[in-house]
Amino acid sequence: MTAPTITAPTHRDPVSLRAIDTDLHHRITDWRAIAPFVPEGLRNRVARSGGPPMARHAYRPLGVSDPDAVAAAGDPARTKEAYLDPHGVDLAILTGTLTNLSVQPNVDIAAGLARGVNDWTLETWVRPFDCYKGSILVAPQDPVQAVEEIDRLGSDPGMVQVLIGSASEAPLGRRVYHPIYDACVRHNLPLALHIGGEGAGMSPAATAVGHPTTTFEWYGALPQSYMAHLMSMVTEGVFERFPTLKVVLYEGGIFWLPHVMWRFDKNWKAQRAETPWVKERPSAYILRHVHSTTYPLEAPPNSDALEQVLEMVEAHRTLLFAGNFPDWDFGDPFAMLDGIPDELRRPILVDSALAVYGERLLAPNR
Amino acid sequence: MTAPTITAPTHRDPVSLRAIDTDLHHRITDWRAIAPFVPEGLRNRVARSGGPPMARHAYRPLGVSDPDAVAAAGDPARTKEAYLDPHGVDLAILTGTLTNLSVQPNVDIAAGLARGVNDWTLETWVRPFDCYKGSILVAPQDPVQAVEEIDRLGSDPGMVQVLIGSASEAPLGRRVYHPIYDACVRHNLPLALHIGGEGAGMSPAATAVGHPTTTFEWYGALPQSYMAHLMSMVTEGVFERFPTLKVVLYEGGIFWLPHVMWRFDKNWKAQRAETPWVKERPSAYILRHVHSTTYPLEAPPNSDALEQVLEMVEAHRTLLFAGNFPDWDFGDPFAMLDGIPDELRRPILVDSALAVYGERLLAPNR
Repeated sequence: MTAPTITAPTHRDPVSLRAIDTDLHHRITDWRAIAPFVPEGLRNRVARSGGPPMARHAYRPLGVSDPDAVAAAGDPARTKEAYLDPHGVDLAILTGTLTNLSVQPNVDIAAGLARGVNDWTLETWVRPFDCYKGSILVAPQDPVQAVEEIDRLGSDPGMVQVLIGSASEAPLGRRVYHPIYDACVRHNLPLALHIGGEGAGMSPAATAVGHPTTTFEWYGALPQSYMAHLMSMVTEGVFERFPTLKVVLYEGGIFWLPHVMWRFDKNWKAQRAETPWVKERPSAYILRHVHSTTYPLEAPPNSDALEQVLEMVEAHRTLLFAGNFPDWDFGDPFAMLDGIPDELRRPILVDSALAVYGERLLAPNR
Repeated sequence: MTAPTITAPTHRDPVSLRAIDTDLHHRITDWRAIAPFVPEGLRNRVARSGGPPMARHAYRPLGVSDPDAVAAAGDPARTKEAYLDPHGVDLAILTGTLTNLSVQPNVDIAAGLARGVNDWTLETWVRPFDCYKGSILVAPQDPVQAVEEIDRLGSDPGMVQVLIGSASEAPLGRRVYHPIYDACVRHNLPLALHIGGEGAGMSPAATAVGHPTTTFEWYGALPQSYMAHLMSMVTEGVFERFPTLKVVLYEGGIFWLPHVMWRFDKNWKAQRAETPWVKERPSAYILRHVHSTTYPLEAPPNSDALEQVLEMVEAHRTLLFAGNFPDWDFGDPFAMLDGIPDELRRPILVDSALAVYGERLLAPNR
């Protein structure tokens, strides 16, 4: 469990960075481009129109994404030209679109796709462009293969985190997932979760009380996955066992964190007899280990409420900028920072991402 | 859909009231006492040691409730003596312990039990004691029988609300449940939800990502049911269709409301095309229709955070006192008010309950 030494020279001066986007959804425009990267037996199933067989849910995106932006997101040079350069984004972490990989019943297809997409991302986006960093996508439903994939790519300076969809058959604190966290800390990689596959494949209904009917209802409820996962991780002692594990939560907002932290703190006083390994207040683990992202933030009716909650969640060190390109249904991600106090802008746009991802973020990609 | 006229003379001066407890868990000590009140064919199944056949989950209470208090909660005179009188509680709304009735697969047993427990509550607690008011417990999984029960008891001055467990096979905004809400507003009765049955019987796993392992984890996650139900009710247009419906949420805290309201507001701007009947911002419906209760409130590390969230949720008119007798795992419910600003005490303890429940709360019980 020693952190890897990245021997490549640091080539960026952090002071010069203007913005680090932690959530850029690069797209697979044509699955035939992925086929060469997946195991041979899977190639014919991947190289079909529409891509590989994958369980999907019926909640489709509603917002009208800009078709030019969507097209650009399939090409690294065009994305740089259309988004990064005009917006002053110096570095972007690629998160792709496979948020429902985590609930595919065929774990071998899931693991093969993860491997293929990771190599394709490295080859076509990360190696040729120093402005991009990759995520090691894994399918947690087979922890053994997930660990193999993290070990395979965990020392690559082009990869800066492990990424899994938050949609899940079981809460992520369960002990069966701990080898994944062990691999994350062994390679000094944060674990990022992304909502989106809830209700598909092996996942239960997208809420604790059954299936939402509309995208509007479904999308609104998604942060409940994060709540349940965090409670599970705290309860099962993940942060006691892996004290250096960092967690990044995409697209879930921040206003629920005080509820989870402080309901849980109150319960802990009465109920911790059952989980004696949970030695600290739950809020202490959450504030120390969990990072949130800006797209989309909740929209309170006044900036007082926003500033108050930013303080409750210690946003000056826990909140990271997320651009969510090319899906800007909720507006420009930079405009979303407008209500945020000036002194938080630099931490959100640059400093906290550097603290979370470390020097790997600044290293060359090859 | 006209409100009922309660002809019994108002016999209490609201000014004299010191505290109204909206959540007193009176207990069934011996199911044989219920047997005479259930339909004849169900009596032999109810009058067994341990009570009727009911699906249960494995999350058992952890806290050590005071055995004297638990015993007292089975008897109206002893409850008055042990709890109401020494604490200055003038009125208490009885909520029982059958929070998992809502997920029993046999809907006829569920409806029969609801009817029996309601009549037993009226006969043994409410009629003889003016300090108690009852809840019309119904099993929402059979809306037709639920409506019949509301119509049967909806004009009784001893009954002040309709009560259902929040554990549910489906989100409560679904149109199949709308006749229940129609019956609530027809009788001018608030709809109260109580957590506790999540994970039992017909309910999905207690979180959107599967089964929690411990009581600590399970109990912490329960407000997610409320979040999903509220989103469903807003999305399906419940509050447009039933503009006088009031909802009371027990034991779920309040710190999650700003998240639900304002994530949902933000999404509404982008996603409402799918639900054109949702004419207002979701937060407007939630603030107008939803009431929360004090036991247990989240435990923030400082009173600033509590005061800020109390203001965000407009607690001066939306928050009701709940005593949760006899289960005080999280401490004395009056001590829980200590961090609350003085000017909110009277609204929480008396005025808001009067506003929610109306003059029925002050009427004699027979």
